Amino acid sequence: MEKNGDPSHYLKPGEFESIKKFAENKKTPFLLINLKTVEEKYEELEKNLPYAKIYYAVKANPEPEVIKVLANKGSNFDVATVFEINSLLALGVAPERMSFGNTIKKEEDIAYAFEKGITLFATDSESDLMKIARQAPQAKVFFRLLSDGSGADWPLSRKFGAHPDVIFGLALKAKKLGLIPYGLSFHVGSQQRDIGQWDDAIAQCKYLFSSLEDADISLKMINLGGGFPSDYVQPTNSIEIYAKEITRFLKEDFGENMPQIIVEPGRSIVGDAGVIVSEVIMISRKSTANHYNWIYLDIGKFGGLIETIDESIKYPIFTDNQRQKQDLIEVILAGPTCDSMDIMYENYRYQMDKDLKEGDKVYILTAGAYTASYSSVCFNGIPPLQVYTTRL
Amino acid sequence: MEKNGDPSHYLKPGEFESIKKFAENKKTPFLLINLKTVEEKYEELEKNLPYAKIYYAVKANPEPEVIKVLANKGSNFDVATVFEINSLLALGVAPERMSFGNTIKKEEDIAYAFEKGITLFATDSESDLMKIARQAPQAKVFFRLLSDGSGADWPLSRKFGAHPDVIFGLALKAKKLGLIPYGLSFHVGSQQRDIGQWDDAIAQCKYLFSSLEDADISLKMINLGGGFPSDYVQPTNSIEIYAKEITRFLKEDFGENMPQIIVEPGRSIVGDAGVIVSEVIMISRKSTANHYNWIYLDIGKFGGLIETIDESIKYPIFTDNQRQKQDLIEVILAGPTCDSMDIMYENYRYQMDKDLKEGDKVYILTAGAYTASYSSVCFNGIPPLQVYTTRL
Repeated sequence: MEKNGDPSHYLKPGEFESIKKFAENKKTPFLLINLKTVEEKYEELEKNLPYAKIYYAVKANPEPEVIKVLANKGSNFDVATVFEINSLLALGVAPERMSFGNTIKKEEDIAYAFEKGITLFATDSESDLMKIARQAPQAKVFFRLLSDGSGADWPLSRKFGAHPDVIFGLALKAKKLGLIPYGLSFHVGSQQRDIGQWDDAIAQCKYLFSSLEDADISLKMINLGGGFPSDYVQPTNSIEIYAKEITRFLKEDFGENMPQIIVEPGRSIVGDAGVIVSEVIMISRKSTANHYNWIYLDIGKFGGLIETIDESIKYPIFTDNQRQKQDLIEVILAGPTCDSMDIMYENYRYQMDKDLKEGDKVYILTAGAYTASYSSVCFNGIPPLQVYTTRL
Repeated sequence: MEKNGDPSHYLKPGEFESIKKFAENKKTPFLLINLKTVEEKYEELEKNLPYAKIYYAVKANPEPEVIKVLANKGSNFDVATVFEINSLLALGVAPERMSFGNTIKKEEDIAYAFEKGITLFATDSESDLMKIARQAPQAKVFFRLLSDGSGADWPLSRKFGAHPDVIFGLALKAKKLGLIPYGLSFHVGSQQRDIGQWDDAIAQCKYLFSSLEDADISLKMINLGGGFPSDYVQPTNSIEIYAKEITRFLKEDFGENMPQIIVEPGRSIVGDAGVIVSEVIMISRKSTANHYNWIYLDIGKFGGLIETIDESIKYPIFTDNQRQKQDLIEVILAGPTCDSMDIMYENYRYQMDKDLKEGDKVYILTAGAYTASYSSVCFNGIPPLQVYTTRL
């Protein structure tokens, strides 16, 4: 049992009981995705940003059933590689509904995507732009801005995007090369808690829209990226508040001349829809004097929980029995492999039942995003995470 | 080209040319394993520690061809899971040559291993010991000591092992339960540069051998674990020096009554035997004022280079053209996925040819250990790392 609340805080009424029932007699670990929640999250976003076109970020969870459900809802798709393009085409998703959102592309992959019918490409460098011009003539391109103000994640987020001066030059060049300079994009960082980050980025977009207008280039679209949150241990605002604020920022900057808006949610659509069911392999104390236990689960960093690196994502974790505070002890949570790095939480101490036993089930909630597809192909011989879907 | 030397420092004469030839017209990325080097590394260790029984740590690289080559050489095998046991049995490795080295085991997995004929088990907790006693009666058990002095890695290495006072109790209990308290093990940490770490651990073993002798338990074996190095960017001592020092420590503590010695090399056997051949997807500058380039490869943290987390393992990296110092510039190396964490080296600046182009090949040396099996099953849709073997 985790100290922040109980499962009902994260799940619908009766859902936890249904998950437990589903898990009976099933070999652990596995990820169970509630497709109904996926739909509801999509609907919620659609309702709160009615003017936006939604491109689901496939990388967050590429499970075919998830793609099908979202395709039926009318979603578009942000794809990262030709492999994702192929999977989606095989599921019957039309190429017009895909955006090639990765700014790091091989020239042959651009050619392949264009040949299949994709005409919307992200870019952030001259070299990528030239490749698009050669292989996807007259395609629409949008330019990814470097996100400046993402706080602690700043150094990492420099991987994607370019500074406004570079973007300005790229837009001019795109036009000259016969491409359609279509819009701008940015990404404030996944699971972004500071809504003000969108304000800064939108203001930067407005500035570029205006200065490019002066150069006779009229951009049509802003891609707000992802960053909307899932419900982990630390509190976040609701999608409603995010949407309201973002809408206000857009109106302040663009007034009646609102450009077309695209969003690329991944985590916020599938995160809350997944639960990983795991089992306690072993409980041990390192010395007779230690006050806490080491709990070893049958899933770890390399079986799907890679986002526990640096303990960055803190999943809500529960067991079958919900105890009172006085029956809880602090534990360290580690994975099953022989890798010493395979420890999920050592600094942030989860609290679990004092009388937890080996063989007991452990439920890792809000685990629908960035888990199954990340899992290692066979580290320590362990097969990739099994995925089931259901409707609850 | 990396600043520390050139490929000939890491490879045999002519080997780099052969690798380049092998890579012609092959789709990147892939890992190429030189089976001859695997054999040579095994022979070198055997020659330098003639009294030791070698148990290859399968997790380092479970490629069937590697296992077969080592099995033919007479190696034994340290296995982490029932999945590894099954793979090895399928390759014809006898169960008597396997040691179940993972201290985190499900009871059903112990039963399965024992039923298949494995009778040597690592343990470090009472609960695991009880499971072994129930499922593998009269098996040999060895007890893993917590490694105290592993310096910077200390907090992480606490995942495995127990303090001597706990081990002492476990040995007594094992005897009472009808098991054979057979020996001790420790692991000084992978790629351990400080040979003195073995001295401390061996002294601790001696202390436990003596105190258990007084309790009528006569241990027979010490498992020195792994930790022998591969040849990365930072200099290390040769296996010869490691072996000489470790032999001296053993003689100092045990004199003529040397116990049976086991070693569990993984990295030191296969690390040097592998090269990852990759391709430059894109080169970009983030602003017009930046002095360095971002080089994006078609392999990254999630495609097999997970040991670049925190830039801990620094692979020797080369390109086709070996330039002079004045033709090199500092670069940041990143992977192909849409994940901002997928950056290999940002603080440690590799140096590469000023005129490196997209499509050029990049050779990541000493990449035979902890790469292919770690790669994600389909993150961003990308398939796991392709593996080839050869003899050079």
